[in-house]
Amino acid sequence: MPKIKVAILGATGAVGQRFVQLLENHPWFEVSALTGSDRTVGQKYGAGVRWVLSGPVPEYAREMIVLPTEPGFDAQIAFSALPTDIAKEAEPKLAAAGYGVCSNASSHRMWPDVPLLIPEVNPDHTALIAHQRQARGWPGFIVTNPNCTSTGVTIALRALHNAFTLTRGFMVSMQATSGAGYPGVASLDILDNVVPYIGGEEEKFETEPRKMLGKLAADQIEFAPFVLAAHTNRVPVTDGHLVCASLEFAQKPSPEEAARVLADFRAPEIVQNLPSAPKQVIEVRSEPDRPQPRRDRDAGKGMATVVGRLRPDPLFHLRLVILSHNTIRGAAGGALLNGELLVAQGMVK
Amino acid sequence: MPKIKVAILGATGAVGQRFVQLLENHPWFEVSALTGSDRTVGQKYGAGVRWVLSGPVPEYAREMIVLPTEPGFDAQIAFSALPTDIAKEAEPKLAAAGYGVCSNASSHRMWPDVPLLIPEVNPDHTALIAHQRQARGWPGFIVTNPNCTSTGVTIALRALHNAFTLTRGFMVSMQATSGAGYPGVASLDILDNVVPYIGGEEEKFETEPRKMLGKLAADQIEFAPFVLAAHTNRVPVTDGHLVCASLEFAQKPSPEEAARVLADFRAPEIVQNLPSAPKQVIEVRSEPDRPQPRRDRDAGKGMATVVGRLRPDPLFHLRLVILSHNTIRGAAGGALLNGELLVAQGMVK
Amino acid sequence: MPKIKVAILGATGAVGQRFVQLLENHPWFEVSALTGSDRTVGQKYGAGVRWVLSGPVPEYAREMIVLPTEPGFDAQIAFSALPTDIAKEAEPKLAAAGYGVCSNASSHRMWPDVPLLIPEVNPDHTALIAHQRQARGWPGFIVTNPNCTSTGVTIALRALHNAFTLTRGFMVSMQATSGAGYPGVASLDILDNVVPYIGGEEEKFETEPRKMLGKLAADQIEFAPFVLAAHTNRVPVTDGHLVCASLEFAQKPSPEEAARVLADFRAPEIVQNLPSAPKQVIEVRSEPDRPQPRRDRDAGKGMATVVGRLRPDPLFHLRLVILSHNTIRGAAGGALLNGELLVAQGMVK
Amino acid sequence: MPKIKVAILGATGAVGQRFVQLLENHPWFEVSALTGSDRTVGQKYGAGVRWVLSGPVPEYAREMIVLPTEPGFDAQIAFSALPTDIAKEAEPKLAAAGYGVCSNASSHRMWPDVPLLIPEVNPDHTALIAHQRQARGWPGFIVTNPNCTSTGVTIALRALHNAFTLTRGFMVSMQATSGAGYPGVASLDILDNVVPYIGGEEEKFETEPRKMLGKLAADQIEFAPFVLAAHTNRVPVTDGHLVCASLEFAQKPSPEEAARVLADFRAPEIVQNLPSAPKQVIEVRSEPDRPQPRRDRDAGKGMATVVGRLRPDPLFHLRLVILSHNTIRGAAGGALLNGELLVAQGMVK
Repeated sequence: MPKIKVAILGATGAVGQRFVQLLENHPWFEVSALTGSDRTVGQKYGAGVRWVLSGPVPEYAREMIVLPTEPGFDAQIAFSALPTDIAKEAEPKLAAAGYGVCSNASSHRMWPDVPLLIPEVNPDHTALIAHQRQARGWPGFIVTNPNCTSTGVTIALRALHNAFTLTRGFMVSMQATSGAGYPGVASLDILDNVVPYIGGEEEKFETEPRKMLGKLAADQIEFAPFVLAAHTNRVPVTDGHLVCASLEFAQKPSPEEAARVLADFRAPEIVQNLPSAPKQVIEVRSEPDRPQPRRDRDAGKGMATVVGRLRPDPLFHLRLVILSHNTIRGAAGGALLNGELLVAQGMVK
Repeated sequence: MPKIKVAILGATGAVGQRFVQLLENHPWFEVSALTGSDRTVGQKYGAGVRWVLSGPVPEYAREMIVLPTEPGFDAQIAFSALPTDIAKEAEPKLAAAGYGVCSNASSHRMWPDVPLLIPEVNPDHTALIAHQRQARGWPGFIVTNPNCTSTGVTIALRALHNAFTLTRGFMVSMQATSGAGYPGVASLDILDNVVPYIGGEEEKFETEPRKMLGKLAADQIEFAPFVLAAHTNRVPVTDGHLVCASLEFAQKPSPEEAARVLADFRAPEIVQNLPSAPKQVIEVRSEPDRPQPRRDRDAGKGMATVVGRLRPDPLFHLRLVILSHNTIRGAAGGALLNGELLVAQGMVK
Repeated sequence: MPKIKVAILGATGAVGQRFVQLLENHPWFEVSALTGSDRTVGQKYGAGVRWVLSGPVPEYAREMIVLPTEPGFDAQIAFSALPTDIAKEAEPKLAAAGYGVCSNASSHRMWPDVPLLIPEVNPDHTALIAHQRQARGWPGFIVTNPNCTSTGVTIALRALHNAFTLTRGFMVSMQATSGAGYPGVASLDILDNVVPYIGGEEEKFETEPRKMLGKLAADQIEFAPFVLAAHTNRVPVTDGHLVCASLEFAQKPSPEEAARVLADFRAPEIVQNLPSAPKQVIEVRSEPDRPQPRRDRDAGKGMATVVGRLRPDPLFHLRLVILSHNTIRGAAGGALLNGELLVAQGMVK
Repeated sequence: MPKIKVAILGATGAVGQRFVQLLENHPWFEVSALTGSDRTVGQKYGAGVRWVLSGPVPEYAREMIVLPTEPGFDAQIAFSALPTDIAKEAEPKLAAAGYGVCSNASSHRMWPDVPLLIPEVNPDHTALIAHQRQARGWPGFIVTNPNCTSTGVTIALRALHNAFTLTRGFMVSMQATSGAGYPGVASLDILDNVVPYIGGEEEKFETEPRKMLGKLAADQIEFAPFVLAAHTNRVPVTDGHLVCASLEFAQKPSPEEAARVLADFRAPEIVQNLPSAPKQVIEVRSEPDRPQPRRDRDAGKGMATVVGRLRPDPLFHLRLVILSHNTIRGAAGGALLNGELLVAQGMVK
């Protein structure tokens, strides 16, 4: 079977580089186009990129010529690592031109007819695409994946919400600097330091899980009715976002019941068979001091969610710690899995 | 006026070294004895200590001979930086021998007749000393300062509790590695990492503020009735404990009211005049991204509490961030201030 | 073909854990015994070990019972991650009992009849084993791999020395904290800091390359006659030792000639086919700012040596930067490759 | 005596902020003007600056209005923290307009008639100012201080060169990220990493000491004839540049002699009495593992040079480690001390 042609939009940035890395030797997809900013358009990718990941630039991408981010390239899916302001303009144009845009940008996550999608969490939300196309007259579409901090947390909440119905939650994140892109966080701001603020992050973190755990109702999503309160912090860690959570439910679970529900959580079969899906969606650790970013971020090749420290909460019902790799599961890997789901669902042919 | 002779118990450890540093050129106190473990007893302090603080070992201490931790030395106050298990045995013996023990150890913090003391918070709790002496027949006494994480938080809560009456609080700490002493946290555990667990810390953090903000009732303390839920984490920071808190009160304050109450908080006059008291007990920062450990830990020479990010909470009433220097205000400096208060109150003559 | 049974001595320490990890699913070897200290003997490995590497304890090792480090276990090769003082006693006993000891300990590296071995560098030095056995009456033997800092440097020097004959070299290392084992370097010593001293390291670094690049002469090694001057430093990096070197040769190479010689360096064919041998022994990077520990340490699965910044030297002939993964190539992986070479050479049957 | 009015050029950058901090309560100088880039001109300094140092913006500077960097402000000395390209244009204009420019920029360091000045090292080089004024027809002048890495090293070399005559030296630096300004080094480049390259730094490091230790001959400096070979590295440290050096001299010193010469080094009396001069110019540490950036950078309030690990070198004569605070002694503090020297020498009235 011939591979499906895909483009990477904003391929020279930090998240764009992850796409380039994750799409090397992909069983279904073949990268046919890389787009970049004015600075790099027309250059060979290997020359124009300031590669910040480990190892060398993948062979396949080095000689590709960086294209402008506009319709014209030959691809069915466009994975978007564009900055928010550019995504805002470019992604609707591309959808209108017939591309299936799988975007990591925040620009359209809250549009009522745009799925905010995690395959293990809400694969049925792709039904919004039909409404989106009809309403906007697009041959293509836009699908988004959530903010890097929301991702792992929403996966864990999916399992718990199914079983016990979440009502309220406190969330405090300790986020890696790669979440801010490159150059992103200045070393003078973070060495021997913590910055207890990330612009715009708390709002996303309090809202996005409610959309993803909401119900598909006709042509939109009814947000889940729980309430979250978030504190977000930047810590001197390269990759891996850690979240401390205190949760209240309609049915109070014991820590043991919660652990079982998390460990037993399975994605629908269509998702389990996607090439980038982790074998075990949620890994539950029983050591008292795990998960930890450096030691657990690569679980399931960076696609698993790792949960630990399940214990009772003096005020709510359950305390726990949740870890997710922010540039793999929380960004490029998440968008890639969305693309795979759309192929499996027949949305991309 | 001749200076008061003081001893430092466990002077070679990390907190002991802070005592040695902070007592250099103290206006009221003169260090007359340094005690250490079997390994160092009999050696000159400058030779026996593995000095881990910045700068050199203070001149005055270098030639002092390290003594065993047992009665016999000439001092009125004994500042204790002993490990918990040794403090458990040694401190009561010293109190029985007539010394006024100002201890940083956790061993006796929860004894009903032992003050858990922060001069700006509960200076009246020293009234327990009379009961302690009577009940135990001690010419000396034991006074303790709280855990390094509880300290700054309790100072901030004192101001807010006075004004609005705290009912419930979520607390997530990001703690410096110096809080674990030396050698303490292995670099392999914390470089590029966060450890979401500190043994025994959450229990202390949930309980100690309730004792300190409790009421002195006859010969014991009635714990304050609020409930705290704590998550404690170790981050790659050398000094300075940061806490994210979500708080609920009997009277809901606006962030502006809370800021005013915190900034206006004053210690009783007897405390304001102590040599180690910070001029401004609580510094309120208005920038969106402060306080930060590296940039704010030295506020008030490490004795001030720095608060910021005051904002509404979607579930409770108030969200904020609290910072305190853990080895100064949260350990040696806190015990030193306690010693100064006891002198000012006439408990040590 | 049945696998060769191997033991891991000191399997619970940091280097021991790397052996456990690298030997999972090894094509030639099967781990039949894990030994540990008194504290862990008799326990299941999974329960006794304080696992410090990423990911979980490999399945195969979890239920194995930790044995004492003494003859009696069923294995042909014993990979030793023992501390120096214990290795000193235990390794000769094991060789006397018939085991082939491949040791990472420094204890016997400088014994004249013990090979200090890097397969790509001096595979012929295994000829010492016959002398060793004869002189000591051992049915087994001891083979050692070099210090973690010497390893990568000696591989790069092998290529350059072959071509241009090294005469003098300055070496300054910046070493990862994992080189000190676990718990090893205290976080308070290394966060926001550099420690310009590692006990005993400079002597090893100045001597070991001279033995490995020396000539096999009858029953011993004539050390290579070049002179090295070393400065060794500890930096806040988890894995990967970086060395800045200024080198003088009998024949002065241009940076381009040096680059070619390094990139073209090949191990003897017997070595190229070993399961743990890197495909490219030395990777030469042309970017101005590489190699870097975090971005290049995993080259060749941690078994390659990465070299960059080749440029003229104002005093000597060549300046360059050399990187090697200290716990893989410089410790467990190096010993493992030695074991593989001995099998290929027929020394272990 | 009325204070001398001084301006800070480029006051909003990282080095500019250090000037603002160090000039608070200066006994001789009063800050009368702060200049900044187009972005901040016209704003209050406290509002326009993104303050990156510890503690708050000094009171005195908060309400000052940021001026453009051009003649017109009322000051005798202009301390320049301008970026190189802007300094290139602006500093000559200011000298032509009558200001005494004490610059931290590299732009004019190598002009033959511009002193590259460290008061303890070459105070006589200010004699170039007369030539500079005459040749250029300037009522003002430009004086420069060296690169942050050269500074501490040149101070140590001054003492050793006086006594033993340096002939050759190898230098490897491990430099703090604050040396690159703000935002400067991206956290993703330096967390858990070392970058073995700093653009343009090695050339400066090999040349500047030769000018400063050169001889004043008529209207220019005869460079000292020794040769240096430098490797420069960026390490995850906030402040403090560490250098490993191997040195060769005309007269070989023992480590003990070298230690004595360094510890006994005194600046000329006119320098010793400057307000910012450290009491002890060079502090020699005898512990095996010092100096260290975090623990020694604040020696002499960041103005002392700290030297340790004096030992023989297998190839040259002496190995040692040199530390200096890069944004205090190596930047703002160095320029400030230059300004003080010029006042003491009567060059500024």
